[in-house]
Amino acid sequence: MTKQHIPVTFHPHGRTTHVLAGTTVLETAARAGLALNTPCGGNGTCGKCRVRITKGAPPPNASEQQVLAEKELQEGWRLGCQTHIEEEAEIFIPESSLIAGHHQIQESSSTDEVQELQPIVRKRYVEMTAPTLQDDIPDLMRLEKNMGELNTDIQLLRELPRKLRQQEFKGTAVVSDHTLLDFEEGDTSCLCYGAAFDIGTTTIVGSLLNFCTGEEKAVTSRMNPQVRRGDDVLSRIRHSSSSPSSLQELQTLVIDEINSMIDDLVHEADTERRYVYDVIFAGNTTMQHMLCGLDTAQLGEIPFVPVHRRGLSLWADELNIPINPRGLVYVFPVIGGFVGGDTVAGILATQLSRQEDPVLMVDIGTNGEIVLAHNGSIYAASTAAGPAFEGSRLSCGMRATNGAIEKVVINDELACGVIGGVAPSGLCGSGLIDLVAELIRLGVISPEGHLPRAPDISADIPENLRERIKVDDNGEKYFVVVEDEHNAEKSEVVITQSDIRELQLAAGAVRAGTEILLKRAGLEQEDLKRVLIAGGFGSFIRRKHAQRIGLLPSKIDHRAISYVGNVTLSGAKWALLSIRAREQAEKYAKETEHMELSTDMDFQTHFAEAMIFP
Amino acid sequence: MTKQHIPVTFHPHGRTTHVLAGTTVLETAARAGLALNTPCGGNGTCGKCRVRITKGAPPPNASEQQVLAEKELQEGWRLGCQTHIEEEAEIFIPESSLIAGHHQIQESSSTDEVQELQPIVRKRYVEMTAPTLQDDIPDLMRLEKNMGELNTDIQLLRELPRKLRQQEFKGTAVVSDHTLLDFEEGDTSCLCYGAAFDIGTTTIVGSLLNFCTGEEKAVTSRMNPQVRRGDDVLSRIRHSSSSPSSLQELQTLVIDEINSMIDDLVHEADTERRYVYDVIFAGNTTMQHMLCGLDTAQLGEIPFVPVHRRGLSLWADELNIPINPRGLVYVFPVIGGFVGGDTVAGILATQLSRQEDPVLMVDIGTNGEIVLAHNGSIYAASTAAGPAFEGSRLSCGMRATNGAIEKVVINDELACGVIGGVAPSGLCGSGLIDLVAELIRLGVISPEGHLPRAPDISADIPENLRERIKVDDNGEKYFVVVEDEHNAEKSEVVITQSDIRELQLAAGAVRAGTEILLKRAGLEQEDLKRVLIAGGFGSFIRRKHAQRIGLLPSKIDHRAISYVGNVTLSGAKWALLSIRAREQAEKYAKETEHMELSTDMDFQTHFAEAMIFP
Repeated sequence: MTKQHIPVTFHPHGRTTHVLAGTTVLETAARAGLALNTPCGGNGTCGKCRVRITKGAPPPNASEQQVLAEKELQEGWRLGCQTHIEEEAEIFIPESSLIAGHHQIQESSSTDEVQELQPIVRKRYVEMTAPTLQDDIPDLMRLEKNMGELNTDIQLLRELPRKLRQQEFKGTAVVSDHTLLDFEEGDTSCLCYGAAFDIGTTTIVGSLLNFCTGEEKAVTSRMNPQVRRGDDVLSRIRHSSSSPSSLQELQTLVIDEINSMIDDLVHEADTERRYVYDVIFAGNTTMQHMLCGLDTAQLGEIPFVPVHRRGLSLWADELNIPINPRGLVYVFPVIGGFVGGDTVAGILATQLSRQEDPVLMVDIGTNGEIVLAHNGSIYAASTAAGPAFEGSRLSCGMRATNGAIEKVVINDELACGVIGGVAPSGLCGSGLIDLVAELIRLGVISPEGHLPRAPDISADIPENLRERIKVDDNGEKYFVVVEDEHNAEKSEVVITQSDIRELQLAAGAVRAGTEILLKRAGLEQEDLKRVLIAGGFGSFIRRKHAQRIGLLPSKIDHRAISYVGNVTLSGAKWALLSIRAREQAEKYAKETEHMELSTDMDFQTHFAEAMIFP
Repeated sequence: MTKQHIPVTFHPHGRTTHVLAGTTVLETAARAGLALNTPCGGNGTCGKCRVRITKGAPPPNASEQQVLAEKELQEGWRLGCQTHIEEEAEIFIPESSLIAGHHQIQESSSTDEVQELQPIVRKRYVEMTAPTLQDDIPDLMRLEKNMGELNTDIQLLRELPRKLRQQEFKGTAVVSDHTLLDFEEGDTSCLCYGAAFDIGTTTIVGSLLNFCTGEEKAVTSRMNPQVRRGDDVLSRIRHSSSSPSSLQELQTLVIDEINSMIDDLVHEADTERRYVYDVIFAGNTTMQHMLCGLDTAQLGEIPFVPVHRRGLSLWADELNIPINPRGLVYVFPVIGGFVGGDTVAGILATQLSRQEDPVLMVDIGTNGEIVLAHNGSIYAASTAAGPAFEGSRLSCGMRATNGAIEKVVINDELACGVIGGVAPSGLCGSGLIDLVAELIRLGVISPEGHLPRAPDISADIPENLRERIKVDDNGEKYFVVVEDEHNAEKSEVVITQSDIRELQLAAGAVRAGTEILLKRAGLEQEDLKRVLIAGGFGSFIRRKHAQRIGLLPSKIDHRAISYVGNVTLSGAKWALLSIRAREQAEKYAKETEHMELSTDMDFQTHFAEAMIFP
């Protein structure tokens, strides 16, 4: 049974999403890819997640009345973490309420040296005098008198004399770290862009930023086309080693997609490719290696050795990315074979090691990366958590796309939230977590993860739940989430005993990894001051449910857990706008202690223990 | 009439040349491309030009008896500046007696920071352990543990994992300034070469040096094939602007020639192109621009603006020079439109500003470059001196090749030295200077440069000279150098009144330029402590004769004048072997004051005055 979905539109971003009544604005915004700032952990005390609800604002609660002024409340200002969507809404999110985004970079205090708008490419319009007998210095020196010492490639040097004279010694110099990239006709100093990409195993997200203002001018996302060569990282690595041309095939797939996305970004921002001078990429180690055409064979074998650790600074044409002909590319540094640039970007975006420690960040994508910062040290590990949460390997699993049950609430009856407001066709990761957590809470699923036979179920459980437990022809028990209704375009959605087992394995891996990192740092779960849930998927998880199934530490208050959204993209955008941030990313990658779990005996023990729900 | 030429062979270089009896060893060695060290100006006092004459040693003179020990004299040691060739000789030149060559670099004292063997490319054989569970660092970091932080291009990074494993983590790292250029199989650390080129308007000379030992392994020279598109710099500039493809045509001509020369060098040194990692080029500004495909149009118009001043560091493949695929190229910095990298290399090789000042260097090639160093300042200018000295624009002029009269001595009779010992077919620059200087000395040519009519000639002049002055059908006077002898394969060689005028113009330009530089520095001719004659051509000039025609300062003792040979190649070789020398070249180019003579009114006045022989 599906409740009505309510449309909510966010401004100035213009993004609309649909959610169940009762969903917080915080969660709804995350759904739209907008991570609100919640330093208090969504407690309603810090006031950093304030939004203005211009249509459909519910009455303020006590927290809001305390934090916000009366006038503000009248204007529709509310706290994103406190307000629930009850009807169709229009919501304005000020830039200051977005977390770890580029907007913060400009607004933050000058005490934090990474938070400056300092892109690696700068443009400046210059007017020079033409050479005379009294002023016969070389052409390049003439420009250097205005711009400081400049290197340049030979091709631009070949064009320079003609350019200078055709443009009557006026134009816009494009400079990156003392290298002249171009000398453009007229004053194009504000036409200066860069693109940041989060290259996920499943999804690629790209953003176009203006280097003069730091503004995000366009965003786009696509399925990673490599998916057709394997769902997860390991199957892609296997494919890349299957023939000499396979690696190049995978590289071409992703690069072609990026090029097409750049087309979209440039179109949306109403500019041109030639005004894009820098592209930055963050992804897991395998995705980054494939992007660069680097051999991934060693990533598929113990001890999982990457080719490089430091970030790669390349020319865009070395990767066939057709931005400005002398455009640049930066690929994030990595920490290990399975802790990649995406994690580094996350550490950067959240300023993890500068948070009040100890703080844990969990990014659940196709893989699950776990990072613990404490006392100036950072520890990171990766677990093969993904497939269950991404919907694969489940009987009714699916990705978080239209038709996926992404939320399950069981009170008197079982209610589902379905993405797109259409008929449900399967369960995505967050729906799965909700469902299992609710069934554990109600005692339908045992701590060991067993579905009881219908006759064994406590009579306390409502009749309508009890009768959803069935047994198939092979004797496997399953729980019916959505009943088959003929002629209503609804087919049956179930969760089987095996599905529950898959979830236990995935959650158990993250839980065991967390224990290993805590142990390494000499900490217990209870010591954690904050837990950050990163990643697009993570934003849809109900915190208490994630704790109940053991995915997140269960011994801390759920209010210490907060959503930070797509920190990979945030970190990439940040590094695009600030070379200092880039330097800091390099530092984090270098200093983070990488713990290889798959060969850690301790991990095996914790993993076995984690097979029981907390 | 031609005197007998005497063969002289130099060791260990194995070069043989032919000279007239009475030629100094210093001059003879210069003829073979070997510039002896003469800090005392060829005065016979410093002993720096010592050579060992193993065959044909004449008795020592007083200077030699004073400077050399009795035992040395018995062993055949003599001073190159004092000993004259009288019979066929075999001469050993120790490396310490050669000027400004690379050999000095290794031997000189450590107080001079540029004189170290410190090429930009280094090789080191390393053996590493393979990755293990306990040692799972990235491939590049594994190499960095041995080599320090390394950048690398993406293509090499793509090859690195395979190389490391195929070579079992052993091999030779090729590194340039923290950039990994290659990781070769086995220990190839001694197979490390670089090439230095002097790109002259007329001649290209190349040298291959071993970076481990500093030794010169091969030398070759060729005519610059661009000659077919014009003899001098200005006609080449005109050609390069004649059509859009002309510049590229000129570039291709010179690059193809260089590639063919590299073949020869590599073959002679018994090595391979892939072991050549660095190529350095020094030439005049136009030659360097054409080599790099840089627009030369502005070099042909007032105010003669070059594209760049600082040296250019490029990848060899950017210029299509097929050495190692990741090999490097360095093109010398320039001082001005007509004072190029060849002059900078000369300043570097002679350490001009470190000489006891004031010191003047004159390089007479197709152009005449003049450099004055005094009191820490360097002044440089260029004059269009060349064509006359290179033999063009003269009725019987020719280049200094076989059949060219390169020396003229008039005592009782007129004697000629002919290159190659064959029948004379024309006059080259040095022969022309000799001839005119001797005719001035004897009063056959007046101070104004006039050949008198035969009846007007003083009776003091021997009859056989007087009767050589004739008048052609157009009324132009000429002087017969070699008479037409039918059936003896000798044709008439003459010098006309117009030829003398050409020489006056050329010498006058250099003389006027010298005056301008002296004036700028607040000096007079008499203040000059030393005058260095640079360039292959300069080595063949008789000093007193060059003074007599006004080409070199006439008011100083001729012993203050010394030959320094091809300092362009010496400087290029030096910069190839030492990055400190390269830095110093950049410093000289930056600090030298460039004086543009062609638009200097003062120069016009001095030039007019210089029309009268001193």
